[in-house]
Amino acid sequence: MKKIKHLRCSKCGKNFGEEVLYHCDECGTEGTLEVVYDLDFIKTKLTKEYLKNNNRKDLWRYMPILPLKEERGITPLQVGWTPLYKAERLEKFLNLENIYIKDDGRNPTASFKDRATAVGIAKAIELDKKIICAASTGNAASSLSGFAACMGIENYIFVPAGAPEAKITQLLIYGSKVILVDGDYDKAFDFCLKAAEEFGWYNRSCAINPYLVEGKKTAAFEICEQLDFKIPDKLIMSVGDGCSIAGVWKGFKEFYELGLIDRLPQMVSVQAEGANPVNRTYRKNSREFDYKTPSTIADSISVGIPRNGYKVLNALNESRGLTVDVSDEEILSAMKTLARYTGVFGEPAGVTGFAGLLKLVEEGSINKAESVALIVSGNGLKDVKSAMKAVQKPEKIKPDLGELRKYINI
Amino acid sequence: MKKIKHLRCSKCGKNFGEEVLYHCDECGTEGTLEVVYDLDFIKTKLTKEYLKNNNRKDLWRYMPILPLKEERGITPLQVGWTPLYKAERLEKFLNLENIYIKDDGRNPTASFKDRATAVGIAKAIELDKKIICAASTGNAASSLSGFAACMGIENYIFVPAGAPEAKITQLLIYGSKVILVDGDYDKAFDFCLKAAEEFGWYNRSCAINPYLVEGKKTAAFEICEQLDFKIPDKLIMSVGDGCSIAGVWKGFKEFYELGLIDRLPQMVSVQAEGANPVNRTYRKNSREFDYKTPSTIADSISVGIPRNGYKVLNALNESRGLTVDVSDEEILSAMKTLARYTGVFGEPAGVTGFAGLLKLVEEGSINKAESVALIVSGNGLKDVKSAMKAVQKPEKIKPDLGELRKYINI
Repeated sequence: MKKIKHLRCSKCGKNFGEEVLYHCDECGTEGTLEVVYDLDFIKTKLTKEYLKNNNRKDLWRYMPILPLKEERGITPLQVGWTPLYKAERLEKFLNLENIYIKDDGRNPTASFKDRATAVGIAKAIELDKKIICAASTGNAASSLSGFAACMGIENYIFVPAGAPEAKITQLLIYGSKVILVDGDYDKAFDFCLKAAEEFGWYNRSCAINPYLVEGKKTAAFEICEQLDFKIPDKLIMSVGDGCSIAGVWKGFKEFYELGLIDRLPQMVSVQAEGANPVNRTYRKNSREFDYKTPSTIADSISVGIPRNGYKVLNALNESRGLTVDVSDEEILSAMKTLARYTGVFGEPAGVTGFAGLLKLVEEGSINKAESVALIVSGNGLKDVKSAMKAVQKPEKIKPDLGELRKYINI
Repeated sequence: MKKIKHLRCSKCGKNFGEEVLYHCDECGTEGTLEVVYDLDFIKTKLTKEYLKNNNRKDLWRYMPILPLKEERGITPLQVGWTPLYKAERLEKFLNLENIYIKDDGRNPTASFKDRATAVGIAKAIELDKKIICAASTGNAASSLSGFAACMGIENYIFVPAGAPEAKITQLLIYGSKVILVDGDYDKAFDFCLKAAEEFGWYNRSCAINPYLVEGKKTAAFEICEQLDFKIPDKLIMSVGDGCSIAGVWKGFKEFYELGLIDRLPQMVSVQAEGANPVNRTYRKNSREFDYKTPSTIADSISVGIPRNGYKVLNALNESRGLTVDVSDEEILSAMKTLARYTGVFGEPAGVTGFAGLLKLVEEGSINKAESVALIVSGNGLKDVKSAMKAVQKPEKIKPDLGELRKYINI
């Protein structure tokens, strides 16, 4: 019996068999495919009982609803099943009663992207692909790099020549072959696409590869289980290309259709003011993305054209979603507030969702008793340079108790 | 019934009651105290059955043998129970059969130190201490900062004025009060000690606080459980002040005395060549530490006088320990090898233990079938600047398939 029914185009709805590796032939790269499962079949396996007796504390506990036929490509790195904290000190501060923070910076390479990579690498191995590639300078790149190293898979990562050296360093440490492209990110992306076609490499890009988002949806499954199947009213996430929030929405929908949960959350898309194509388009109730050069400190979500735009619009429409735009100042301020009330230090893109929550609270758009879950998608150590902009270095003092008394005002 | 019998001086062996907060009155700060438990009592609670039925997947699963009377100070941050990987690709590369890597960079603030801080903060809360302090610029500081933020505990961190801004930033993000001391680390340490006495703050320093190492020992407990109570022949760790390896040794000894394991590992202390006071002293079979100005890229273990020297000498003597010194080049090279064969990216001090393993293999001092466990104590993202020294940035190329073919030699 097969788990997967077919792959469906997220733009036009056309169905494809699993022999199609990437996007819809008619819509091109805009038509990313979505994996549609035989949920009646899966229902017989994936039950609350099954989950309760499952000792695997990583995303592979959801194997019955992951797009893999075999376990050969499963990484030893422990990915997923990240902590979900009830943020009590934060609740008091914000005068809310039910805030849950999922710290996905605790993944192996310190970001949410590891969920996608784990599935992508496993699929590459299942398909006997010997080489995998990606264009990125950010979390997708370091994630691919680390997982490929762990599994011993050759990999090429296309990076724009101007990318920060710190980010390139991590890829080189892991032994990736870094192709430093004379050009910007878009050039690197297109070049990677071309090279993948030419050399038959497997492309780890959520924009065209339908399986990566299947890893992302597991964050929703975990939230369901960690909240004992009581679904939060709102699920807040930072949004760039759109595949992360779309993946998480897919997860909730699947658990709903499997009868494991009895309601769905409202999805809240938070974007940076300077990079908000998804939110703009959704608010206009349109399906056309107009381009603006993106500009935000939150580099992982600094997106001009959202490469998974239709998936995220679908998610927002289906969940009667909400959008919030936040400024860079609000993002940096949110970084401090989150760290100071929960101990979770997130990178700018990782805390953009939280900045959105703070804005909703300020506007009075959240009821006290409403339950809110949000995912922090990357560790603050990934971008300490940005964090520096959020704080002020103190003056130095002499090692003298009198001076100290004055300084701290005791 | 009381868990703790007494506190024992690690230098002279004198016993103290729990009313003593810090070090031995006769030996001064050299006489750090060690918590001695009533193991006959604990034996009745902490059994294999107890552990098997314990669903807590963090270090609090060992509560029966942790120095806390109550759960009030337990942090919501999920600390400990980090993954232990059987490193199969590495085994093949090194022609060994049993290598286990414990990735403690997966802790909340990305280092092994979180184990100590979790217990230290809980103890501070139990003792009704309102303010906690430390002198550090490294992992102990960021760890204290993050956990104190999570628990809402006021804290002062004494930092030498020359400390890297990136490290200070994290403390400021968490909202710690940073005292930037006009002087070096030793000045900051002494000033912190004085201020703690003067103002009654609780001091989070493994050098004088007996409870912190109690958190560290839990790594040993986890290794025992994760290996199904089959103890590795060698336990390899990076060593600076000495309290981490001493803590882990204490963990093994306690499980041995509780009858949970039937043998003990040989402890292997790996230090940087330029900061090896523990290894020098042990090899001379001495108990006198001679001072040399420390110099190594591995800043967390760059130590001139080991502040927990007697504890680590005891651990090495009791386990017939082994010492290895490694150069900075070997540390940087080990960083790459570890990342490339396991996907685990460690900071320089985090992979120094692994550099020691590589050296032992090179010297032929490890048998193929021997089992070796090693702890990676900190995430590589903590010190990307050092990682940059280990790799070379590639040349940039034009986005052209012909160029790419030439470049990658296809």
